[in-house]
Amino acid sequence: MDQLIKAIIDKQSVAVVGLDTAFDYLPEGMRQNVTRASEAAESILEFNLNVINAVKDLAPAVKVQIAYYEMYGVEGLMAFRETVRYARKAGLVVMADAKRNDIGSTAECYAKAFLGKSKINDLTFEPFGADILTVNGYLGVDGIKPFLDVMRDRDKGIFVLVKTSNPSSGQLQNLVLQDGRTVFECMGDLVEEWGSDNIGAYGYSKVGAVVGATHPVEAATLRKRLPHTFFLIPGYGAQGGTADDLAVSFDERGLGGAVNNSRGILLAYRKERYQGQKYYEAARNALTDMQQDIARALRNKGINRIGE
Amino acid sequence: MDQLIKAIIDKQSVAVVGLDTAFDYLPEGMRQNVTRASEAAESILEFNLNVINAVKDLAPAVKVQIAYYEMYGVEGLMAFRETVRYARKAGLVVMADAKRNDIGSTAECYAKAFLGKSKINDLTFEPFGADILTVNGYLGVDGIKPFLDVMRDRDKGIFVLVKTSNPSSGQLQNLVLQDGRTVFECMGDLVEEWGSDNIGAYGYSKVGAVVGATHPVEAATLRKRLPHTFFLIPGYGAQGGTADDLAVSFDERGLGGAVNNSRGILLAYRKERYQGQKYYEAARNALTDMQQDIARALRNKGINRIGE
Repeated sequence: MDQLIKAIIDKQSVAVVGLDTAFDYLPEGMRQNVTRASEAAESILEFNLNVINAVKDLAPAVKVQIAYYEMYGVEGLMAFRETVRYARKAGLVVMADAKRNDIGSTAECYAKAFLGKSKINDLTFEPFGADILTVNGYLGVDGIKPFLDVMRDRDKGIFVLVKTSNPSSGQLQNLVLQDGRTVFECMGDLVEEWGSDNIGAYGYSKVGAVVGATHPVEAATLRKRLPHTFFLIPGYGAQGGTADDLAVSFDERGLGGAVNNSRGILLAYRKERYQGQKYYEAARNALTDMQQDIARALRNKGINRIGE
Repeated sequence: MDQLIKAIIDKQSVAVVGLDTAFDYLPEGMRQNVTRASEAAESILEFNLNVINAVKDLAPAVKVQIAYYEMYGVEGLMAFRETVRYARKAGLVVMADAKRNDIGSTAECYAKAFLGKSKINDLTFEPFGADILTVNGYLGVDGIKPFLDVMRDRDKGIFVLVKTSNPSSGQLQNLVLQDGRTVFECMGDLVEEWGSDNIGAYGYSKVGAVVGATHPVEAATLRKRLPHTFFLIPGYGAQGGTADDLAVSFDERGLGGAVNNSRGILLAYRKERYQGQKYYEAARNALTDMQQDIARALRNKGINRIGE
């Protein structure tokens, strides 16, 4: 997690570019004449690489949502793998947004797949090789421990779903327990506990929490409650979360969270504001607009420089 | 879900073969000289196809745990895809055990990937083409609805995690809410509700629940509480669940659940009981032993023939 926080400070930006690249998001010219899944995957990869090149000096990280690649089968997953590789080589921190979860022995496989290495006889390799993975904690600590084991002595991280950005997230997450806590607060407390042995240079652990920008009241509660837990904040833009909504998730140094935006950046080229721009130029400009919007909200909190 | 129940009645067996095939599970001869991920994936696929051929007349279904394939990267996922295809062609109901979960727009991608079809210009194809998918319901109904939409007019199914088989499942799932229900009971109630528009020919809906064999008290509660919810029951064998433990999950017809066994079948050839047998012969014999064990437990409940 420290490398993410360092990148945020270096680039003075908490804005993460979400590469949730559906084939339909591509400009018409990149979709024409595509008749196979493998060709679609190549077009998606080309789109991603151009976006990565356009944002790599500005963004600390990209978040690659694997569902959009699984939708195109094995061919799509090749584009996922190559996107992750390219983004890491470009110096970006790479989050695999896969929300994986299972019993211990199976979670161990996921930990190897996304954050660690697999072994076949004398061959050792990184199957997908991301820096950070999103996970779902419904199964309790058994399903988390394999990730902690893989992260030991490595600068990797996980974000556990705590309070998600979608409208129905409260259906389970906001229920109140007999001890007065909500389910999401309980999950948050578990996350803080799971990370307690792994606190890094900036005071945040390797075990972060997903806390949606669309629920500012819950986010404010969690920020106070979980002092060592870094937040991945989805829901800005297309989902309705504003910069002022998500400002509550940051500490007095402007640290404590990274804000994802996917559709707002990838599809910027279709908006009037960025008319006439290439998709990757529009992506870069939409990212800059987002950064300025968040910087303004942080200034309103008295934060002029991130990390100080 | 009806096709699963029909297969259970036709084959008079609730035992599902779990294809959680780690490379290390293969006999030494199949592991020798393997130096690449693609070769490992080919060996794993060969192992799976031989197991499928050995059990296809006995088992109603296979459950393919995707984590074991993701561990070998894109090459592993090719073996996953081909395993699913082969098992379906062999007449088996195929469950993809992937525990996917996300916000609505992203869950839609997963629904297409595993149960539906994707579209690229004029091309329509099934990315992984399973019959049934396991999902995690922590995000509430938004994350479930895309699966219901894909299942409409198709004989598909999902199993939502309710009470998982692992030791720490109670850490979140057994917490008590202010209204007196546990979190897993609440999740179970949601599952029953989500399935209420999709009740099939046997009285069970397309939205099932994962209920571990290792927690018989909770399973008995859930069986009474969720009359239209079919259970996927992991945890038999290697994880410690017994046939008597899981018998509580069945109704008076012997319906209501399918019991998975992975390591107990795939690794049977390493056990003294099956010594000298080929791995697929041992798998078949271990499956038969499991079926007899469960049949005995069901007879103790007065059930002599499943479905009557």
